[in-house]
Amino acid sequence: MQDWQLLCHRVIEHASRQHGDRRVVSRSVEGPIKVTNYRQVHERALRVSKRLLADGIAPGDRIATLAWSTSNHLECWFGIAGIGAIYHPINPRLFVDQIAFIINKAEDRVMFLDAGFVSLAEEIAARIPAVERYVVLTDRANMPETTLRNAVAYEDWLAETDGDFGWKSFDENVAASLAFTSGTTGEPKGVLYSHRSIVLMSLAANSRDMYGFGSNDVVLQVVPMFHANGWTWPFSAPMAGAELVLPGARMDPEALSELLLNERVTISGGVPTVWQGVLSYLQERNQTLPDLKRIYIGGSPSPMSMITAFTDRHDVEVRSAFGMTEMGPMAAICSVLPETRDLVGNEMLALRQTQGRPPFMVELRIENDDGEVQWNGTSAGHLKSRGPCILSAYYGNEPGSALDDRGFFDTGDIATVNRHGYVRLTDRAKDLVKSGGEWISSVDLENLVMDHPDVHEAAVIGAKHPKWDERPIVIAVRKKDRPVSKDDILSFLDGKIAKWWTPDDIIFVESLPHTSTGKLHKTVLRSAYENHLLTILRD
Amino acid sequence: MQDWQLLCHRVIEHASRQHGDRRVVSRSVEGPIKVTNYRQVHERALRVSKRLLADGIAPGDRIATLAWSTSNHLECWFGIAGIGAIYHPINPRLFVDQIAFIINKAEDRVMFLDAGFVSLAEEIAARIPAVERYVVLTDRANMPETTLRNAVAYEDWLAETDGDFGWKSFDENVAASLAFTSGTTGEPKGVLYSHRSIVLMSLAANSRDMYGFGSNDVVLQVVPMFHANGWTWPFSAPMAGAELVLPGARMDPEALSELLLNERVTISGGVPTVWQGVLSYLQERNQTLPDLKRIYIGGSPSPMSMITAFTDRHDVEVRSAFGMTEMGPMAAICSVLPETRDLVGNEMLALRQTQGRPPFMVELRIENDDGEVQWNGTSAGHLKSRGPCILSAYYGNEPGSALDDRGFFDTGDIATVNRHGYVRLTDRAKDLVKSGGEWISSVDLENLVMDHPDVHEAAVIGAKHPKWDERPIVIAVRKKDRPVSKDDILSFLDGKIAKWWTPDDIIFVESLPHTSTGKLHKTVLRSAYENHLLTILRD
Repeated sequence: MQDWQLLCHRVIEHASRQHGDRRVVSRSVEGPIKVTNYRQVHERALRVSKRLLADGIAPGDRIATLAWSTSNHLECWFGIAGIGAIYHPINPRLFVDQIAFIINKAEDRVMFLDAGFVSLAEEIAARIPAVERYVVLTDRANMPETTLRNAVAYEDWLAETDGDFGWKSFDENVAASLAFTSGTTGEPKGVLYSHRSIVLMSLAANSRDMYGFGSNDVVLQVVPMFHANGWTWPFSAPMAGAELVLPGARMDPEALSELLLNERVTISGGVPTVWQGVLSYLQERNQTLPDLKRIYIGGSPSPMSMITAFTDRHDVEVRSAFGMTEMGPMAAICSVLPETRDLVGNEMLALRQTQGRPPFMVELRIENDDGEVQWNGTSAGHLKSRGPCILSAYYGNEPGSALDDRGFFDTGDIATVNRHGYVRLTDRAKDLVKSGGEWISSVDLENLVMDHPDVHEAAVIGAKHPKWDERPIVIAVRKKDRPVSKDDILSFLDGKIAKWWTPDDIIFVESLPHTSTGKLHKTVLRSAYENHLLTILRD
Repeated sequence: MQDWQLLCHRVIEHASRQHGDRRVVSRSVEGPIKVTNYRQVHERALRVSKRLLADGIAPGDRIATLAWSTSNHLECWFGIAGIGAIYHPINPRLFVDQIAFIINKAEDRVMFLDAGFVSLAEEIAARIPAVERYVVLTDRANMPETTLRNAVAYEDWLAETDGDFGWKSFDENVAASLAFTSGTTGEPKGVLYSHRSIVLMSLAANSRDMYGFGSNDVVLQVVPMFHANGWTWPFSAPMAGAELVLPGARMDPEALSELLLNERVTISGGVPTVWQGVLSYLQERNQTLPDLKRIYIGGSPSPMSMITAFTDRHDVEVRSAFGMTEMGPMAAICSVLPETRDLVGNEMLALRQTQGRPPFMVELRIENDDGEVQWNGTSAGHLKSRGPCILSAYYGNEPGSALDDRGFFDTGDIATVNRHGYVRLTDRAKDLVKSGGEWISSVDLENLVMDHPDVHEAAVIGAKHPKWDERPIVIAVRKKDRPVSKDDILSFLDGKIAKWWTPDDIIFVESLPHTSTGKLHKTVLRSAYENHLLTILRD
């Protein structure tokens, strides 16, 4: 058989040749909707490549992108990876210190950025001296005044070269992309995606039970490109010849609803908070989504009410999705197997809330200290994974250093798997409460406490205990003007949980700490409260 | 990223773990329907591996299979490839001499065969001395008396070992399968499939516009496993978790209709002649196929009447498929693009008769002496291809020896591609009539002649001509008791073709020569008639 390497640029070449006229629709950062197609994305990506080479960029160099999802951003990715350089998408919602940290860690030589992020870049420019040039993803008319080094408007920069260029073949194990985890427990860690891993993940994700994109689909990618490689949608869509719709900077309900309706979107995906807004917006206007067939919800579990609203009101299939940067990123998607398709009511809703099943090439395993744990839906263990798109080592570390003896990567999640292979995440391993050798899921307990009508938000941590090692305590925020008491909540939990899960204390606070990506910052809570029980037991 | 090789046995491991209870239904060669599942296929494949090793089979050894499509045959494939040996499926419809030739060429050490092929094997056993052992795919009760060396019933052979075995990882470029072309122009030529090429082709073929198999599909694979790796269905189905139905030795309309109806098949695929019988059988009984959604027709073009019958009578989508052993094998499948979905009537039928579009990883190019030919639907050229599942060299030849300067494999077909990327094969290159530097498609001309109601069969070849190099002549078989004349046919063609396409002569014969796979044997016709015009012009 021929030696034909799995390279990212082969994807846009295929889309250009076989689906050249297929639209790529972006809401530009300047505002208006901009329509292009795969042929033009391909042509402009070739110009990006040629222009980068003219700037002295070499294979292996890292190039930062600080941008919302647009066709400009997309063509930069293909242009960067096409010459063997590495695109490094940055989450603009990270703390400024973290952004500077990861740019220095990556030693990015160039930064592509939206005009809206120029002031953010100026704020850190002095601290990221390795960045030689800033290319602002706009034209001369919209180019802001800036003090950034060698700043240039993207269209001017591109106009300095022509498209007379061809991509070469090279080893598919060469790195194409560098992504950093958000790092709730220390410094952000880098994950290098190879061309091979991106292409294989896009192929696996395009199977019918996963994304199942086809050339007749119109795909609205709400998850930003800087989140775990945009769930590979920037590759899966052109690979399948699906029309790609990119929302730019506006992920508000009005803007997204407009795209869903006007572009006749058939498939979309993003985090739950985004969809909550869209559902309310549409309901207020009594609108439905007649073209939308399927929606992927990931990042955090989707509430039952959201699944019901999509299913009943819009006749849309909801598929929960589970991934992480270290897993390439799609680990599992929840579609309905023949064994489960006759489930109804809450049983079907409960199924749809699980993280689902892995595609071919993602091996999952749950284990505890005694070895592999049975797939029975109740026994929980550490979720581990193996496959060609799964991390082997964090950026800068020895190959294999993130793997156990069997070559599996520990996801840091605690999960059950039922007999049909559906994964349910029960907790992050570090957030589990280990009480007398048994595990209590902090997430399950938090969700139960938050079901109380007077509770606004709640966190559960394991506090040190002289007899049980750890016992769960709740740190909760009351809803405004709701004087709910500790005893109220304990009686509310009574009967809903095993006795030994009952929290040893409930502490009310004004607010809870969160990370830059909006998750509960349990590290902070643990340092504040881990000795709480020792203190009150001693007193 | 992790080093995880693309190996055939990873497919059945995935199916066993994630879709273990999914049924694999075979019509056994003994007759009754046999139901197993992916878990059991996996377990028994591991036993095949262990047992082969006990017989001294080593990585790289070739193992022949002479068998219809059954779960036994399937588990042999996984068991053979799982230890790095090479399965070599043999088409029992080849001439006996060809079968002996390819077994010797492959130097097969073991043969797995159906009980029904024991006498065929006995006929050639003396001429294939390298085959050390014959394993008959049956149990002791159904084992025929035989003189074959070391013959053993499969179930007895398997029972001599247990399943305590695990497959190892090895380089994905290792060969898994050896297939021989049917060789109309000389000796059959071998094509070695690597594990990588099989896995990648199965992934590509599982995309929505190609097979689009999902876990809710029931897939009836009518194309035999010995035809071009069974169009990769033996891998694509377990990869997707689809139920797999295998027809064994019976591809007659009654047997296939029974499987289609009883197993509630949703997707099927095979050659046109098979479907013609099924359609008639169902129509006579006034039955429809309510579960069947899609059907793939390949091997030769599907007649319009067949497409119409499936579409109108059974509400089944027909997708033409084009592949060849040298192409891994699926080169293109005809699904409807958004640009073409509004076509109606004959325009849609004409689209559905084209060979369709290639998936990602199959690059197609048409070229003539002046270089690449435009994709305009009318300009024809040599169809060439590049990709990780495309042949680089025939078995035993130097790597790359089947490729041109650009690394493309010449398929030997002449094709047009329209502006939407749909390929239409117009002729085999060697069958083109080259008249005064212009091409005349022998296939197009044959089809027109065969449209005449009094013509049973017709072949067109290029006969040598002193002025035009070649001119088309027709060799035709009349229908019984239909005294059609040369002039009748020439007037019938008048107005349907360009004047210069008009055949220079029409010769009537009693019958035409065919190859072992039922195609017109044009090599024989050319030797008999290539000087026909020179002779009559001289006389």
